[in-house]
Amino acid sequence: MSDVFIGIDVGGTFVKIGCFDSKMNLVSKTSIPTNADMGPDAVLDAIAETIEKLVTDSDYSKDDIASLGIGTPGPAKYREGIIVRSTNMPKFTNVHITKELSERFGKPVAFENDGNVACWGEHACGAGKGVDDMVFFTLGTGIGGAIVNQGKLLQGCADNATELGHMIIYPDGRQCNCGQKGCVEAYASASWTAVRATEAVEAGASSSLKKVLDEKGRISCKDVFEHLKTGDALAKKITDETAKALAIMCINMLHATEPKRIVFAGGMIAAGDILLNRIKEYFDEMIWNLKKETVEICFATLGEDAGIIGAADLGRLLVQEK
Amino acid sequence: MSDVFIGIDVGGTFVKIGCFDSKMNLVSKTSIPTNADMGPDAVLDAIAETIEKLVTDSDYSKDDIASLGIGTPGPAKYREGIIVRSTNMPKFTNVHITKELSERFGKPVAFENDGNVACWGEHACGAGKGVDDMVFFTLGTGIGGAIVNQGKLLQGCADNATELGHMIIYPDGRQCNCGQKGCVEAYASASWTAVRATEAVEAGASSSLKKVLDEKGRISCKDVFEHLKTGDALAKKITDETAKALAIMCINMLHATEPKRIVFAGGMIAAGDILLNRIKEYFDEMIWNLKKETVEICFATLGEDAGIIGAADLGRLLVQEK
Repeated sequence: MSDVFIGIDVGGTFVKIGCFDSKMNLVSKTSIPTNADMGPDAVLDAIAETIEKLVTDSDYSKDDIASLGIGTPGPAKYREGIIVRSTNMPKFTNVHITKELSERFGKPVAFENDGNVACWGEHACGAGKGVDDMVFFTLGTGIGGAIVNQGKLLQGCADNATELGHMIIYPDGRQCNCGQKGCVEAYASASWTAVRATEAVEAGASSSLKKVLDEKGRISCKDVFEHLKTGDALAKKITDETAKALAIMCINMLHATEPKRIVFAGGMIAAGDILLNRIKEYFDEMIWNLKKETVEICFATLGEDAGIIGAADLGRLLVQEK
Repeated sequence: MSDVFIGIDVGGTFVKIGCFDSKMNLVSKTSIPTNADMGPDAVLDAIAETIEKLVTDSDYSKDDIASLGIGTPGPAKYREGIIVRSTNMPKFTNVHITKELSERFGKPVAFENDGNVACWGEHACGAGKGVDDMVFFTLGTGIGGAIVNQGKLLQGCADNATELGHMIIYPDGRQCNCGQKGCVEAYASASWTAVRATEAVEAGASSSLKKVLDEKGRISCKDVFEHLKTGDALAKKITDETAKALAIMCINMLHATEPKRIVFAGGMIAAGDILLNRIKEYFDEMIWNLKKETVEICFATLGEDAGIIGAADLGRLLVQEK
């Protein structure tokens, strides 16, 4: 019998599943449509069948599975193993997901939110490898966060810690979807970066992005970064504001939990060094001078596999030493 | 032989020392001038002599001491037990304080920064009792911070976590002494609350505080709160700005480490409910509407004893179970 670890990353559209060997090497992976409308039983059955097929196709048997890990969006009672409700999966109310999976495989199941499993993946095998203290931001439609402190995922009092995208950096600033004003998410997420560009063009700012808006009816964050690379002044201004907001978050999290490394992940990091370097420049410009700070700021390296890796590794920790 | 725990709280001017019984009841306490100019050997000798006298006067013997705990201002290498340097005690460079004390008493010594020991005191015996997750702010000349997460003091990668007073809430705002702009400390500490009041009066704002400035040459934070109580409009405006800044910090720390309780300590809390209620009102007004938040915001209850209690209790944990 071998030790095989299964990582499951549940998104609104797809469920990604990875099969890892005893040394956490990725053996095989797959994904299936979430089909959340079918309800929790059908979805969990489909996940279980896919796992069995994936394991068998990789020349292992179901008995080789040592543990499983699963990441889902919140809110959930992660410590109790229960999906309370889900914005993307309305039929999932009070689903005891660890129990369901554990019964199907007879093995222990780790359960964490999607941001935390991705962070743990980068911590275990990616950009956060080798450091005990890291802060993790996902830059997508919104901004998610996670913290590894002293080698462990930081948990709060009720499974809702590290909502870092909703820390306020501009009081009385932009109205965020969450109801607060001035959240970092309302400035520096992909969607809000796009909104700021669109607003500026609509207000008459001179920019090559005007043609994009005229032709496509909208400007995306990707458009902003593309036009930044071709020297558009507005794209630079909009990117600068994004980078500055993210640098402020780096400073604030340095003062809060003192990470050794800060890792950015998510679609926006496709922008590359042009964004990363600007974040670092603002950080250096704005950070205090009481001591020389050595926090490392970098981009994630695992891409879309971070979630399955992190989930599998959290499962592994249930049965193996770190 | 009894179990006696010693707590030492080192300030720039005074060293406070407390003697606690096996159940962490305060048996006796005292304080001596720090006399930091005399250098570390003399200061440590004086502390050791004072401890012996305190213990003996309380009908215990030196052998009854089970452990000691000491809190000092940073920066220090707390985990290594070394005061690297001290702003208030320039002769204390690279002093191995845990070794020095441990050699004098033959007992284990816990070492933490002054903010952390005060936080731990409140957590163990005061306003944070009974909760595993709390955030602690000291409102004095500056703003200090500490975090208890899952029942433990949060530590970062290099003993400088939880510098919560230097989290930025108004980018490009007031110049803080630390070199950053817009730190919460530069708005809401006692000294900066006083500065904002003074600036406003000097700029011609109508206020009963003008008489204070004319007669004493300065306005203190205490003056602001006193004139708030007698209905002065400027004092209300200045206090509101302080409370709003502190409420933003409560929101940001809720989203960061998700405490069950947030405790404010320090000289400023003498203002009482008039300040506390305003902080709570801003919190309720500004917090997101994604979920109903139940974080408790309150004032510390141990006063100046928090440091010796926390230091002694951290020492106790070296030899007893929590």
